[in-house]
Amino acid sequence: MKIAIVMGSKSDYSVVQKAEEILLGFGVETETRVISAHRTPKVAAEFAEKAEGSGIEAIIAAAGKAAHLAGVIAAGTALPVIGVPMKSSTLDGLDSLLSVVQMPKGVPVATVAIDGAENAALLAVQILSVKYPELRAAVKEYKEKMEKEIIAIDEDFQMNK
Amino acid sequence: MKIAIVMGSKSDYSVVQKAEEILLGFGVETETRVISAHRTPKVAAEFAEKAEGSGIEAIIAAAGKAAHLAGVIAAGTALPVIGVPMKSSTLDGLDSLLSVVQMPKGVPVATVAIDGAENAALLAVQILSVKYPELRAAVKEYKEKMEKEIIAIDEDFQMNK
Amino acid sequence: MKIAIVMGSKSDYSVVQKAEEILLGFGVETETRVISAHRTPKVAAEFAEKAEGSGIEAIIAAAGKAAHLAGVIAAGTALPVIGVPMKSSTLDGLDSLLSVVQMPKGVPVATVAIDGAENAALLAVQILSVKYPELRAAVKEYKEKMEKEIIAIDEDFQMNK
Amino acid sequence: MKIAIVMGSKSDYSVVQKAEEILLGFGVETETRVISAHRTPKVAAEFAEKAEGSGIEAIIAAAGKAAHLAGVIAAGTALPVIGVPMKSSTLDGLDSLLSVVQMPKGVPVATVAIDGAENAALLAVQILSVKYPELRAAVKEYKEKMEKEIIAIDEDFQMNK
Amino acid sequence: MKIAIVMGSKSDYSVVQKAEEILLGFGVETETRVISAHRTPKVAAEFAEKAEGSGIEAIIAAAGKAAHLAGVIAAGTALPVIGVPMKSSTLDGLDSLLSVVQMPKGVPVATVAIDGAENAALLAVQILSVKYPELRAAVKEYKEKMEKEIIAIDEDFQMNK
Amino acid sequence: MKIAIVMGSKSDYSVVQKAEEILLGFGVETETRVISAHRTPKVAAEFAEKAEGSGIEAIIAAAGKAAHLAGVIAAGTALPVIGVPMKSSTLDGLDSLLSVVQMPKGVPVATVAIDGAENAALLAVQILSVKYPELRAAVKEYKEKMEKEIIAIDEDFQMNK
Amino acid sequence: MKIAIVMGSKSDYSVVQKAEEILLGFGVETETRVISAHRTPKVAAEFAEKAEGSGIEAIIAAAGKAAHLAGVIAAGTALPVIGVPMKSSTLDGLDSLLSVVQMPKGVPVATVAIDGAENAALLAVQILSVKYPELRAAVKEYKEKMEKEIIAIDEDFQMNK
Amino acid sequence: MKIAIVMGSKSDYSVVQKAEEILLGFGVETETRVISAHRTPKVAAEFAEKAEGSGIEAIIAAAGKAAHLAGVIAAGTALPVIGVPMKSSTLDGLDSLLSVVQMPKGVPVATVAIDGAENAALLAVQILSVKYPELRAAVKEYKEKMEKEIIAIDEDFQMNK
Repeated sequence: MKIAIVMGSKSDYSVVQKAEEILLGFGVETETRVISAHRTPKVAAEFAEKAEGSGIEAIIAAAGKAAHLAGVIAAGTALPVIGVPMKSSTLDGLDSLLSVVQMPKGVPVATVAIDGAENAALLAVQILSVKYPELRAAVKEYKEKMEKEIIAIDEDFQMNK
Repeated sequence: MKIAIVMGSKSDYSVVQKAEEILLGFGVETETRVISAHRTPKVAAEFAEKAEGSGIEAIIAAAGKAAHLAGVIAAGTALPVIGVPMKSSTLDGLDSLLSVVQMPKGVPVATVAIDGAENAALLAVQILSVKYPELRAAVKEYKEKMEKEIIAIDEDFQMNK
Repeated sequence: MKIAIVMGSKSDYSVVQKAEEILLGFGVETETRVISAHRTPKVAAEFAEKAEGSGIEAIIAAAGKAAHLAGVIAAGTALPVIGVPMKSSTLDGLDSLLSVVQMPKGVPVATVAIDGAENAALLAVQILSVKYPELRAAVKEYKEKMEKEIIAIDEDFQMNK
Repeated sequence: MKIAIVMGSKSDYSVVQKAEEILLGFGVETETRVISAHRTPKVAAEFAEKAEGSGIEAIIAAAGKAAHLAGVIAAGTALPVIGVPMKSSTLDGLDSLLSVVQMPKGVPVATVAIDGAENAALLAVQILSVKYPELRAAVKEYKEKMEKEIIAIDEDFQMNK
Repeated sequence: MKIAIVMGSKSDYSVVQKAEEILLGFGVETETRVISAHRTPKVAAEFAEKAEGSGIEAIIAAAGKAAHLAGVIAAGTALPVIGVPMKSSTLDGLDSLLSVVQMPKGVPVATVAIDGAENAALLAVQILSVKYPELRAAVKEYKEKMEKEIIAIDEDFQMNK
Repeated sequence: MKIAIVMGSKSDYSVVQKAEEILLGFGVETETRVISAHRTPKVAAEFAEKAEGSGIEAIIAAAGKAAHLAGVIAAGTALPVIGVPMKSSTLDGLDSLLSVVQMPKGVPVATVAIDGAENAALLAVQILSVKYPELRAAVKEYKEKMEKEIIAIDEDFQMNK
Repeated sequence: MKIAIVMGSKSDYSVVQKAEEILLGFGVETETRVISAHRTPKVAAEFAEKAEGSGIEAIIAAAGKAAHLAGVIAAGTALPVIGVPMKSSTLDGLDSLLSVVQMPKGVPVATVAIDGAENAALLAVQILSVKYPELRAAVKEYKEKMEKEIIAIDEDFQMNK
Repeated sequence: MKIAIVMGSKSDYSVVQKAEEILLGFGVETETRVISAHRTPKVAAEFAEKAEGSGIEAIIAAAGKAAHLAGVIAAGTALPVIGVPMKSSTLDGLDSLLSVVQMPKGVPVATVAIDGAENAALLAVQILSVKYPELRAAVKEYKEKMEKEIIAIDEDFQMNK
C-alpha cells in the first residue's frame, strides 16, 4: 500500500505534511516528491510513467496558481490522481481550484477542497480501501472516532456553557 | 464490479447518462438512482449506509445549485464518493462546484469538472482498477485509443487543410 | 419561545455567540449545539427530526465552506431554518454563501449575510413575532432604539467634528 | 393568514407567480404588488409601514440587479421579510444575490436562491406555521408528498430504464 | 458650493475623511452625515428630500455590504448622487460595488472605485465645475499638479536609482 | 447644453442609442462619436483635450472588455466623464465593469450599470442640472412621471389579476 | 518566419482560424496542429522540444477549461509561447483564463483575451518584428489602417445619422 | 538589447524590481520609468511613440486596479507590450488582470500572472531571443538551471526527511 504525494514547490510542504500524517495514521506508505509540472516537466512525465511500476497505487498532487501538476501526472498514468489546489498570494485559491478541477473529458483529476491535504489523504485511503479490507475497516473506525469526537465536543459544550 | 450513480433530479440524466455509457464500455455494472439530499434525506442516508453491503464499490453523485448530494452520501459511507457539480440556470455551475468540492476536513468528495459525467465514470474505473487488474489494462487501452484518435485527428487536419 | 442554534464546528462559536446574545436580549431561550452535517450526520438528522417536538420553533444553522448543515437540517424538519454562511480560510465566504442560499426547490433556507449571526438571531425573533405579540413589540423597540442610536451618533458627529 | 408579495418590476411576475401558486396551494391569502425601491420610494416606505396593520404577516420581495427592494422594506417594518434575488441580463444574478443577502447588522432579509420564488413561498408558509398549526401540518404533508414523488420517480426510473 | 457626504456607519469615516480633505482643498463646503439606509430610513428619505433645498448641489454616499445608501438617496432627490462602495470584512468589496453600481433604469448612481473616497470628491468637484468656472480652473490645476508630481517622481527615480 | 457620447465600437450603438433618446427627451444636444482608446488613441486624446472648448459639458463613454475609453478620456479632460461598461461575449460584463470603475486616485469615472446607457444619460442630465435650473425641473418631472407609471402599473396589476 | 498554432481540440478551430488569417495577411507561415496536453502528452512534449529546431519562432496555444496546453508547451521550449484561453460551456472562460495566465515563476505564457485568437496572431507578429524589420513596418501599417478604418466609421456615422 | 519597464506608481517598484533583476541577469539593459496612464497621459503617449526610436525592443508595463497602462502604451507603439497586473488593496488583483488581459481585437497585451514581474522579464527575454541567439542560449541555460534546482530540492527533501 503506497501513495505518492507530489507537490509543485517545497513551500507547499506545510500543507502537504498533513496528508502524510493522515496516511501514516492509516499505515499507508508514502513517497513525497517535489516535482514541478512547468520547471521539471520531464521529471513529472517520467514520474507519472513509472509510478505504477514502482508500487504506487494512487497519487496526490498539490500545486497552486495555474496548477497543472495533477493534470500533467494524470495525463501520464492510469492510476487515480487526486488534486489539491493550493491557495497562493492572489485570488484566494480560485485559480488553483479551476486549474485542477476543470479537466477536459478523458483525463479526470479527483479534486478536493483548496488546501485540503487531509481530505486528499483520506480520499486516497478510501480508494485503496476498495482493494484492502483492512483499510475499509480503518476508514469506518476513523469516521466513527470523528463522530464520537464531535459528539463529545457537543456534550462538553452543553455542560460547560 | 459495481458503481452506483446517484442524481439529484431526473433532469440530470441527460448528462449522467454519459457516465453510464463509459462504465458500460468498461464492463462495469451500474445502478442509477434518483435521490435528493434535501427532498428524500432518509433515502439518501439509507442508500449511503447500505451501498457497501449491496456490492457497490464507489459512488458517483451528480447534483446542481447548493449541491449537497455527494457530501451527504460521503458522510454516510466509507466508500469513495465522486461528485459531479451540475450546471443549472444561474451562476454557470459555480455554486454547484463550490458546494461539492469545498468539503470540510474528514469527509472528502472526489470532485470532477462541472457537468463532467464522463470523467466521473473514468475516475470510478481508475479507482476500481486499484483492485481489478483487468480494469487497469482497460484504462491504459482507453488512454492509448484516445491518444491515437487525437493523433489521427491532427494528421487528418494537416492533410485536409 | 425557544430557538436552536447549531454550528458545524466549535470554532464557529466566536461568531455564533452574537446570535445567542441577541436572542437573550429578547428573552428567547436558546439551545446551542455543535453538530456536523458531514461528521455527525445521524445526530444532525435526529436533531432535525426531534427539534419540533422538543419545543424549538426555529433553527439557526451556521457552517462554512461546502456548508450543508442548514440544508441538511431543513431537509429533516418543517420548522423554518435560518442559515449563516461562515467565512473560512479561503474564498472569503463565497463558497459558504452559495452552499447555503442556492437551495433547490422544495427545501428553503432563510439565508443571512456571511458571518451574519446577529441578523440570524433578529430574523429568528421576527419569525417568532408572527406568533408572540410581545416579541413584535420588542422588535419595534429594537428598531427604534437602533434608529435613535444612529441619529445620536450622527448628531454627536456633527457637533464634535 | 396573509403574505404580501412585492416585485420591483412587472416583468418579474413570470417568476413571482410561482410563489403565488405555492401560497394558494397552502390556502394562504396573497397580495401581490409592483413597487420599486428606487422609482416609487414613498410607496415602498408607506407599504412597509402599513403592512403589519393591514393584516400581512410576512413579506416576499423580489428584485434584480442592485436589488434594494427587500432591504428597503425590511428597514420599514418589524415583519419578517423574505428576499428573492432575480436574475437579470448581466452577471447571472450574482449582483442581485449580494445586494439582497449581505444586509448590515440590524436589518435581516431572509434570502432564498436566485429566482427562487417557490422557496420564498414555502419559507413564508414555514414562518406562518410557527403560529398556525394547520400550516405546520400542511408543510409536513408537502414534504412527505415531495419525498414520495421523488421516490416514485426513482422507482419508475429503475423500472423503465 | 456645498457637497453632502453621507456614510452608512461612523466606522466608514477613516475612508470618507479623504473626500472631505479633497473638497476642502477645492474650497467646497461639506456637510458630513452618518445616515443608514436600513437603520434610519426616515432620516435618509428626509435628508434626500431636503438636500436640494438646503443648498447641497451633489451628494456623496459611502456604504458597505448590501450598500443601498446611495441608491436610496438617489431615489429621493434630483441631485446627482455619487456612490462609494466600501470594502467590508468579507468579499473584498465586491458586494458593495455591485449593490451600488448595478442600479436599475431610471435612478443612476455615479459609482467610483471600492473605497475611492478621493475620487468621489474629485468627481463632485468636476460636477460642480459645470456651473462654477473657478472650480473648472481648479480641477485643471489639480490635474496639472498631479501630472508634474508624477513626472518629478519619475525623474527622481531615474536619477537616484 | 451639450453632451458627447463616445463609444468604442459602432456595434455598441444599439445600447448607446438609448442614451441619445433620453438626452433628446430632455432637450440636451448630443454629439455621438465612434472612438477607440486602443485603435485611435490620438483621436481619443485630441477629443478629450478639445471637448470643453467645443461646448461639451460632460462626456459619456461606453466600451467593453478591457474598457479603457472612459479612463483615457477622463485623463485628458477636466469635464465629468460617465462610463458605461458594455457586456461583451465573455465574462458577462464583469471585465468591462472593473476596467471602468476601479480607476486610480486622481482620475474618477462616474460609472453606471453594465449596459446602463439610459442611466448614463440621466446622470449626465442630473450633472447639467447643477447649472441649468430647467433641467433640474425636468429631472423632477421625469422622476414623478416614472413614479406615476409604476403606480399605474401596480394599480392595473391589482385590478386585472 | 514561421509560427506554430496548437489547439487542444479540433472544435477550437472556428476561433483559431482567425489567427491563421491574420498571420497569412502578414505573410507569416503557419503550422496548425491539434495537440492535447492531457490526451496526447507525449506529442505535446515532443512538439515543444522540436519546435525550435523545425524553424518555428513562436507558438500560439489555444485551449479551454483547465487549459494546460500553453503551459505544458512553454515548459518544454525556450521559444515565446502565447496562450489563448478558450471559452467553453461553463464559467464563461474564467477557468481557461486563470489556467493560462497564472503561470508560476520561471515559465511565462503571454496570455491574450478569452477567445482572442486575432490578438494572439498580432502579438506573434509583433514578437517576430523584433527580428524582422519588414514585419515591424507591416505592424505599423496595420495599426494605421485600423486607425483610419475607425476614423472612417466615425465620420460615416456622423454623416449618416 | 533594451527593455523598458514602466510602472503606474512608484509603490509598484517592490514587485517591478524583480523584473529588473531578471533582465540584469540576462545582460539585458533596462530603463525603468514611473508613468501613469491616467495622471500623465501625454508622457505615456510620448513614451510609447518614441520607445522604438530610442532602441527599446519590448516594453513591460505594470499597473493595478483599472490597469490601463499596458493597453495605452500598446495603442501607441508597434513594439510587443507585456502587461503585469498588480494586486491592490481590493479584489485581489482580479480587476487588474481583467483590465490588462481582455484587450479588444487589434491591440494585444502579452499578459502574465498577477504580480508576475519575474515572468514578465523572462517573457521579454524570450521575445528578444527571437533575434538574439545568445539570449536563446541563455534562456535554455536558465531553464536547465531551474530544472536542476528543483531536482536538487527534491533529492534533498527525500534524503533529509
